[in-house]
Amino acid sequence: MSPSKGLDAIADIGLDAHTGGYRRFAWSDADMELREWFVGEAEARGMDVVEDGNGNQLARTKPGPDALLLGSHLDSVPDGGAFDGPLGVVSAFAALDRLPEHNRPIVIANFADEEGARFGIACAGSQLATGALAPDKALALKDRDGYTLAEILTQRGRDPYRVGPPGWLDDIGTFVELHVEQGRHLVHTGDAVGVATAIWPHGRWRLDFCGVADHAGATRMEDRRDPMLAYAATALAARRLATDADARATFGRLEVAPGGTNAIPSRVRAWLDARASTEDELELLVDEIVAEARQASMADDTEIEVSADSVSPAVTFDVPLRDRLATLLDAPVLPTGAGHDAGVLSPHIPTAMLFVRNPTGVSHSPAEHAEADDCVAGVDALARVVETLAT
Amino acid sequence: MSPSKGLDAIADIGLDAHTGGYRRFAWSDADMELREWFVGEAEARGMDVVEDGNGNQLARTKPGPDALLLGSHLDSVPDGGAFDGPLGVVSAFAALDRLPEHNRPIVIANFADEEGARFGIACAGSQLATGALAPDKALALKDRDGYTLAEILTQRGRDPYRVGPPGWLDDIGTFVELHVEQGRHLVHTGDAVGVATAIWPHGRWRLDFCGVADHAGATRMEDRRDPMLAYAATALAARRLATDADARATFGRLEVAPGGTNAIPSRVRAWLDARASTEDELELLVDEIVAEARQASMADDTEIEVSADSVSPAVTFDVPLRDRLATLLDAPVLPTGAGHDAGVLSPHIPTAMLFVRNPTGVSHSPAEHAEADDCVAGVDALARVVETLAT
Repeated sequence: MSPSKGLDAIADIGLDAHTGGYRRFAWSDADMELREWFVGEAEARGMDVVEDGNGNQLARTKPGPDALLLGSHLDSVPDGGAFDGPLGVVSAFAALDRLPEHNRPIVIANFADEEGARFGIACAGSQLATGALAPDKALALKDRDGYTLAEILTQRGRDPYRVGPPGWLDDIGTFVELHVEQGRHLVHTGDAVGVATAIWPHGRWRLDFCGVADHAGATRMEDRRDPMLAYAATALAARRLATDADARATFGRLEVAPGGTNAIPSRVRAWLDARASTEDELELLVDEIVAEARQASMADDTEIEVSADSVSPAVTFDVPLRDRLATLLDAPVLPTGAGHDAGVLSPHIPTAMLFVRNPTGVSHSPAEHAEADDCVAGVDALARVVETLAT
Repeated sequence: MSPSKGLDAIADIGLDAHTGGYRRFAWSDADMELREWFVGEAEARGMDVVEDGNGNQLARTKPGPDALLLGSHLDSVPDGGAFDGPLGVVSAFAALDRLPEHNRPIVIANFADEEGARFGIACAGSQLATGALAPDKALALKDRDGYTLAEILTQRGRDPYRVGPPGWLDDIGTFVELHVEQGRHLVHTGDAVGVATAIWPHGRWRLDFCGVADHAGATRMEDRRDPMLAYAATALAARRLATDADARATFGRLEVAPGGTNAIPSRVRAWLDARASTEDELELLVDEIVAEARQASMADDTEIEVSADSVSPAVTFDVPLRDRLATLLDAPVLPTGAGHDAGVLSPHIPTAMLFVRNPTGVSHSPAEHAEADDCVAGVDALARVVETLAT
């Protein structure tokens, strides 16, 4: 199987005809269809498939310890691209096709809810597997329709009591995740494939700007307690502070209540995604953004509540493994601002990531792309890694 | 029937248990239930009820020309209060109960979709009746789920081909709409009831801020084309410009696409509600806000598209009628920044409005309120108007 052919096989699943993007949210119909596809691919190769209590699917060539784990995730952000996640899964199957013989057991994973698009916490499947996310907290998370993860798991015939660290992780000796690059580092170096050095610390914070709903026509500007204005000031402050710190701050999701054109909002709920190169810098950035949000809210006689949905520490991938793969592949090393399941497993298992060149650097968008030749180069690289580590 | 008893009878319809506000959108289940209640109240008084092609319900004491029209609307904004609209309808029935004998025909109206909460255009029912809104334009309007008004009318057993100016309007000689005040003018004058002088010109504009979706972690701040930032700058500019002009500008509804926490938005769609005391001032205000929006968009290499959803001219209510009612009721006169069906009918029929005191001035919110005694004073006033104009 070529990686392009693998992606073609799932190209229609969860595709939004209007936006041209993918809506493959955890446990949605699209996700269920992708899970079936995954089982089919594994079984066609004679692999056993298990799904742990967190929804992570694991396809194994054979049982045994010290397995080499490959794979990535199949879910997407809202209107995501075709590569973020699936490229790692199809490339793992494709690499295996090149090397049917190997001594070490090989496991290919489809991690559940990597994007966190439905329940708000990224890498939920891998975080539950490692214990980084508590089952109680995860099961109580709600989607936009108000259903908890526990309810959705039950609805999909899964047992919420099985959520938590599973046994399979003990059998993994090494994890190598291949992923489309999110950025243009490889465009600049001129390489099709690179090796990751680190993942920036990052997190999601929910900012609830609260004011008083009132009539948009009858209420004088000076009598208002409109929380939209402190939000707007905060969005601009976040850009300024992140730019100055060479960090990242984004407001990509917003809920305005009650949401009527002719009503002053009572609440603006805004999700801040923030990232920086060190944990101290991230903390400082978020503190500064929140301080400006509080100041703006106070000036308007409105209020603000802040809560951290999730915060992921800095990840430095296993240095010997990284150097070994970089030398083997003659590939450049590069850091990333994007989170990955590899970052979650990295503190527990020697872990590496391979990135495949992305000509525009765009991701989390229908415009996300990797050339077919570069995808093949990614499989070549992954096959060489498997050959070196598993045979 | 007392007005409080009338409101109690419909208190549960469309009530959102979570917010405590009403969600009585045009042609929703709640709206259908309110329509049934209206028919029941009318029939209990021996009135004939017709519904015109636009969904406006008209209950008549008897046929004939030069009728006195009373009433208001029963729909609500998202999480609206109990009084905005329904107080005018129940007070009309209550006033009629006091004066069962009258020479002039009396018609009580429930105007369709006054708030425009579902299809985006306020006073749709009265605007279609007067011809201010073209049937083709109205039928193509879409709700948030993508259904057109034509589809929703068909779904509710109505004939979209009947939409447009109806015959009943020719039989109306005078219109008096009673409404809860949206503001605190009557709190300051110390009166339970006032008479309207004018409605500010107002309108709704849709601003589409368009950029490029990308990864919130991997995309450097300086490489972004994030449309959220121009929106934020525009929201702050709108407040400043409206405050300086003693006008009103509000962003109460917003849609962010794709809407993922870890994705830079591709588009922020924002609805601007703007109002000013004269049409020139309103035009200037909107021009200035749009100019700042364009400037901010250009600075970020993003784009903006602006379209007017609806613009309502200034309304000065019939001066002889207004003076007559103010003298009759010994009531103060006051302008309003809120739009009403009375404003739509005013160019066609001598029209007046009575306002009932609102202790906090808050409206379009669950906190909207009028004291029971003031509601009775409103019915007293409306009964005196009926006595004077119709007997």
